[in-house]
Amino acid sequence: MTATRPAVLDLLPAELVAEAARLDAEDPLAAHRERFVLPEGVVAYLDGNSLGRPLKATRDRLPGFVEQEWGERLIRSWDERWMARPTELGDLVGRAALGAAPGQTVVADSTTVLLYKLVRAAVTARPDRTVIVADTENFPTDRYVVDAVARETGREVRWISPDPATGVQPEEVAAHVGADTALVLLSHVAYKSAFVADLAGITAVAHDAGALVLWDLSHSAGAVELALDDADVDLAVGCSYKYLNGGPGAPAFAYVASRLHDELVQPIAGWMGHADPFAMGPSYAPAAGVRRLVSGTPPILGMLPLQDMAALVEQVGMPAIRAKSVLLTAYVLRVADEALASHGVTVASPRDPAVRGGHVTLDHPAMQQVVATLWERGVVPDFRHPSGLRAGMSPLSTSFTEVAVALAHVVDCLQPTAP
Amino acid sequence: MTATRPAVLDLLPAELVAEAARLDAEDPLAAHRERFVLPEGVVAYLDGNSLGRPLKATRDRLPGFVEQEWGERLIRSWDERWMARPTELGDLVGRAALGAAPGQTVVADSTTVLLYKLVRAAVTARPDRTVIVADTENFPTDRYVVDAVARETGREVRWISPDPATGVQPEEVAAHVGADTALVLLSHVAYKSAFVADLAGITAVAHDAGALVLWDLSHSAGAVELALDDADVDLAVGCSYKYLNGGPGAPAFAYVASRLHDELVQPIAGWMGHADPFAMGPSYAPAAGVRRLVSGTPPILGMLPLQDMAALVEQVGMPAIRAKSVLLTAYVLRVADEALASHGVTVASPRDPAVRGGHVTLDHPAMQQVVATLWERGVVPDFRHPSGLRAGMSPLSTSFTEVAVALAHVVDCLQPTAP
Repeated sequence: MTATRPAVLDLLPAELVAEAARLDAEDPLAAHRERFVLPEGVVAYLDGNSLGRPLKATRDRLPGFVEQEWGERLIRSWDERWMARPTELGDLVGRAALGAAPGQTVVADSTTVLLYKLVRAAVTARPDRTVIVADTENFPTDRYVVDAVARETGREVRWISPDPATGVQPEEVAAHVGADTALVLLSHVAYKSAFVADLAGITAVAHDAGALVLWDLSHSAGAVELALDDADVDLAVGCSYKYLNGGPGAPAFAYVASRLHDELVQPIAGWMGHADPFAMGPSYAPAAGVRRLVSGTPPILGMLPLQDMAALVEQVGMPAIRAKSVLLTAYVLRVADEALASHGVTVASPRDPAVRGGHVTLDHPAMQQVVATLWERGVVPDFRHPSGLRAGMSPLSTSFTEVAVALAHVVDCLQPTAP
Repeated sequence: MTATRPAVLDLLPAELVAEAARLDAEDPLAAHRERFVLPEGVVAYLDGNSLGRPLKATRDRLPGFVEQEWGERLIRSWDERWMARPTELGDLVGRAALGAAPGQTVVADSTTVLLYKLVRAAVTARPDRTVIVADTENFPTDRYVVDAVARETGREVRWISPDPATGVQPEEVAAHVGADTALVLLSHVAYKSAFVADLAGITAVAHDAGALVLWDLSHSAGAVELALDDADVDLAVGCSYKYLNGGPGAPAFAYVASRLHDELVQPIAGWMGHADPFAMGPSYAPAAGVRRLVSGTPPILGMLPLQDMAALVEQVGMPAIRAKSVLLTAYVLRVADEALASHGVTVASPRDPAVRGGHVTLDHPAMQQVVATLWERGVVPDFRHPSGLRAGMSPLSTSFTEVAVALAHVVDCLQPTAP
C-alpha cells in the first residue's frame, strides 16, 4: 500500500477502515509483508490461496543458483546436494507446516501425480478391500484420480455428498466406511467453502474400519495448523504454490507415515526412487523410506521458492500464522455483513473460525463480471463458477488495509451506477 | 578457456592440440559458447549429456520473471500465458529438435512419469495384444516402467538383449515383434555407448507387426537430428536437461502423433488435462489433442531454461548442431587412439559417425578414480559403472580445445607417477 489513502475506502463505513488500520498496527507479523515482491501495479491481492506471492529472497537468489549450483558445480551438484533435496525439503515442509517428524515427507511431481501414486499404493496394500470412499465436493483432480484408479484396479468409489456449507462430517464418513474399505480420500480444507474437516476425528473413524486415510492438504499447508503425526494420519499430499508460495506449478509434497513405508509401493517405478539409482541394475527395488515415492529426476529449480517460504513459515511458526489468518477471514466476514450484504452478497464459508480455513467465498450473481473488472484495476481475488469470489489471504503477505481496499472495490463494482 | 595455454596440453601430441585450435577457428558455432555461463572454476565440461550448462540469458531473466509474470500479473498469468505454455513450449521443442509439426508435443512432468503415461496409454489402446518389446540395454527408468506396467496390466515384456557395441538392430526387433505385440519401447541413442538406432527402420518393422512404437529421445534431442513426423513415429518422450539445457530435473517432453490423439487416454486423470479445467465438472473428459497428456498444474518456472535453449536450437538449426557434434566426438576418438590407447583406454562407442550420438564412452579399469580426480580439478566428465568415462559434448557450449584440455588431464591421471 502507498502512504496515500486510496479514495475507494470512502465506500466502506469509516469504522471498518479504522478497524483495518488498527489490526495492521497490532499485527505482530506485519513486517513480514515487506519480504514479498509487491509491485506498484497490484492494488490488492486476495488470491494467495491459488498462487502465493514470491519472496524477494527467491527473486534475488535465482541468478546465483544458476551461476553457482547449476553453472559452476554442474553435475557435481547432484552428489553434493541435489540428490538429498526431495527428502530434505520434505522434512522442512513437514516440520514447518505439517506436524510431521523427519523421514515421512517428500517433495516431487505435481499434486495430481502424487495423489495417483498414493491412491494406487493404498489400494494395492489392501488387496482384499474393494472400496474407496471419497466426496463429491472435493477438488476435481482428487475426484478424477480416484475414479480412474478405481476403474483400472476394479475398485468402486463410494461417494459421500456432503452439504457444502458444513463439509464432510465424521458421522458421514462412519456411515460410508466398512470392512470393504481400502481408503478414505478427503480434503482437509474445502477448496470452495474453506470448511475445515475434523482431520483427527475422521482419521480415527477410518482406522476403526481398518481403512487407510489420505488427506489432501492443498488448502491447509501454510494457513491452518496441522499435526499429522499426532492425528495418526496415514497418507497426505498437498500443493506448494498456494500458501507455501512455491511458484506456478511448483512441485507438490507427500507424507507417508513411517509405519507404512515398507508396505506401500507406488506404481511409477523410476530410477530416482530406486534403492541404488546409480547401480542401474536389471530390476526395480524401491528405496527405503519415503524416498520410494520419487520417480524421475527431481525438479530442483522449481523447489527453490518453496524452500525459501517453508523456511520462513518455520521461523514465524504456524500458530502465529493461523492466528493472523483467522483475523483476516473474520475481517472479511465483518465487511461482508456490514458493507456487502446490502448489495446482495452472501457468505459461502463457515462463520465459526474453528472450521474456517484461510479463504472466504463471497457469492453474488454478478460476481464473474465484478472479478473481471477488479482484475483490470489490479485488485486480484479468485473467481469460481458460477458466482463465487474467493478471497484467499496469505497471512504473511496480506495486510488488513489491503483487504479493506479490495472489498471497497467490490462495493464500487456492485453499487448502482448513476443514470 | 583463458587466453593462457594450459600447461597440461603438453601431455598431448602437439598436432592434436593444433588440430583442436584449427577446429575451433573454423567452427561456425564457436561464438555461441559465450552465451553460456562459463565460471572460471570449470576447466572443462564434458557432461552436457547429463546436465547442460545454463544460458546467461536464462540466469539474467529469472528475477524479471519472478517480479513480473509471477509477482505482478500473479494468478492472471495463467489466463494470459501459462495455460498455453505446455503445448506452446512443446511446439517449440518439436519444431527445433524433433521434426514434429505443431500440436503433437507437450512439456510436463518428468521423463519417467511421461513414459509411464505413454506405455499405459499404448497397451490400453491395444487391448488384444499382450506383449511389450523392450531391450536390456535401455536406461533403468525405461526398463523399470515397462516391467511395472506389464505386471499391473497383465502384459509380458519380451526382452531384446542387444550387443552393447552395435545396439538394437531392426532385424532383432523383427524377430521379437508379432501379432501379439502392443508396443515397442527403445532409446534412439543408447545412454552408455551413444549408439544411434535406426529410428525409421525400426518404426517400420514395428508397424509391419501392427505394434505401436515409443522412442526415448533423452540422449538425442538437441544433439542428433530427428524427423519424427517423416519416420511415422507414434510416441516419443525425452528429457530436457541434457542437450536441451533445461536445468536439473527440468520437465520432460512427450510426442504423440496426431492420428493417435483420440485413441490414447493416459491413466493419470488430472484437472489440467481435462477438456474444460475450470468447469470442475463431476467426471473426467480428456482434453483434445496432446494436451490430454497433462495431469497436474504445469511447472512454469522449471520450463523457462528449456524455453531459452529450445529457441537457440531453433535459431542455429539442428543440421549445424549435429555437424559440430560429429566433429567433437570424432576428435575424442582421435585423441583416444593417439594419446589414450597407450595408457590402456578403450573406446566403447561406435566409430561410424552415422550411428554415433553426442557422447563417447572411454573405458579403463581405473576410470572411477580418474573421474574423481578430474572433478577435483574442475574437469567434469560423467562416470558410469563399472569403468566408463562418458565424454558428452554439448555442441553449442563446448570448444574443441576444452575437449583437448579435459583429455590431457585424463592422460595426466593415467601416466605412471614418478617413484
